[in-house]
Amino acid sequence: MDDIMMQQISGRSAEDVRSFVRSGKWTGPTSGLAKGYVQANLVILPVDWAFDLLLFCQRNPRPCPVLEVTEPGDPEPKGLARGADIRTDIPRYRVYRDGVLAGEPTDISDLWRDDLVSFLIGCSFTFEGALLDAGIPVRHIEMGVNVPMYITSLKCRPAGKLSGPVVVSMRPIPAGMVPRAVSTTSLFPLVHGAPLHIGEPGEIGIMDLSRPDFGDTVEIRRGEIPVFWGCGVTPQAALMASKPPFAITHSPGHMFISDRKDSEFSVF
Amino acid sequence: MDDIMMQQISGRSAEDVRSFVRSGKWTGPTSGLAKGYVQANLVILPVDWAFDLLLFCQRNPRPCPVLEVTEPGDPEPKGLARGADIRTDIPRYRVYRDGVLAGEPTDISDLWRDDLVSFLIGCSFTFEGALLDAGIPVRHIEMGVNVPMYITSLKCRPAGKLSGPVVVSMRPIPAGMVPRAVSTTSLFPLVHGAPLHIGEPGEIGIMDLSRPDFGDTVEIRRGEIPVFWGCGVTPQAALMASKPPFAITHSPGHMFISDRKDSEFSVF
Repeated sequence: MDDIMMQQISGRSAEDVRSFVRSGKWTGPTSGLAKGYVQANLVILPVDWAFDLLLFCQRNPRPCPVLEVTEPGDPEPKGLARGADIRTDIPRYRVYRDGVLAGEPTDISDLWRDDLVSFLIGCSFTFEGALLDAGIPVRHIEMGVNVPMYITSLKCRPAGKLSGPVVVSMRPIPAGMVPRAVSTTSLFPLVHGAPLHIGEPGEIGIMDLSRPDFGDTVEIRRGEIPVFWGCGVTPQAALMASKPPFAITHSPGHMFISDRKDSEFSVF
Repeated sequence: MDDIMMQQISGRSAEDVRSFVRSGKWTGPTSGLAKGYVQANLVILPVDWAFDLLLFCQRNPRPCPVLEVTEPGDPEPKGLARGADIRTDIPRYRVYRDGVLAGEPTDISDLWRDDLVSFLIGCSFTFEGALLDAGIPVRHIEMGVNVPMYITSLKCRPAGKLSGPVVVSMRPIPAGMVPRAVSTTSLFPLVHGAPLHIGEPGEIGIMDLSRPDFGDTVEIRRGEIPVFWGCGVTPQAALMASKPPFAITHSPGHMFISDRKDSEFSVF
């Protein structure tokens, strides 16, 4: 059923894909859908935690670039997509109570409350398009798997009740293309920007590249350097460590698809 | 006295200048001091207004680029300058009660409260250094006056209790240098970034360039185009319109001098 559905929705606009998701016709991952449109990570929290999370993101902009924050109780992320509904327009959610996973629904309308604030956070899908356009290979896309992610020994700057490690994603880049990978992604500061670290994984506490903390292992070929970017899992890691009484996130890979173009987020 | 003092502090480090300010030996404007170090606009608010202001800045990043937000009650802006004290390290403050100016002290230690949150917001001094380095003239610096600023007909995206117009600063740039002025300032998204508008002031509601709403008039010569950037007065304009019960800002031109270098805020 997913394959037939995938044929129906591939090549559709962001708005079309959201309406498929809203009606329950698509509950799968969003990678490759609505190409060229910005996809975003989601964190929903009660308003009494919202200032701390916004401050945490402001203090750690590389792993936690904020694209949109809604007013308390407002389910419409107007800045990213007018008419969208954050309660229904993501294929699959994760609900946490006191930091513990309590469910993975495909609609959170019945959990909605007037005090909930939604954070939409930039995702590396945006700069990966730019890397491919620049002729730089992206291994996990070639392999059809999820990007490998690692918890580092780098600490985020804490904010209020929130603290935690920096989480990074890794892409192996041919040594001669590393400079171009840096300059290309530097132009997208709102979707993680330049790498945080290049080579020498041990320096940031990554002892074994073949065992990522999240996502899948990818092959690193001779002549390639592991390049590390800030990862949108970082705010979720801080939240899980800090155990708010109630939180909702997207399910990994099941992102919010906005009406904004990737190219709008480039410095030039 | 100011001239003798100016000789003593010119060429000093950011930390030295802050200690002159803290001891009350310097109460003047900060333009030209601690060259190469980032200076910042200040807004201090009670914590129950802080989420709205942080959200307002997130939604209007060109006029309101946030460099640092302190924890409630904490007077040390650790991310910009360890050991600094926001209550004493700015030469002159403005205190507002219910949106009305209530004083211009040089120290706010006696007004400090446990619920106050300080916002430090990027300032175009940073990108002006880059313009000059790129060989682009900056008229108000040549003339030794303040940059002209205008209230536009553009509206900021509102956030909670805060709304208001976009305020812009204007620099006349020789037509042939406008592209370089755009690319140079684009590289500094955390200090207003690229221009918001180039030429045609009437299109953004500016009817007479010779009558700025804030700052001074500057000469526009034949062959020069007025170029408009987002201005750090924007969050203050929104605050004054929204009338929080209590707020403190820096006095215009009397900025916070941080330990961070201008060059740290460039994309490259």
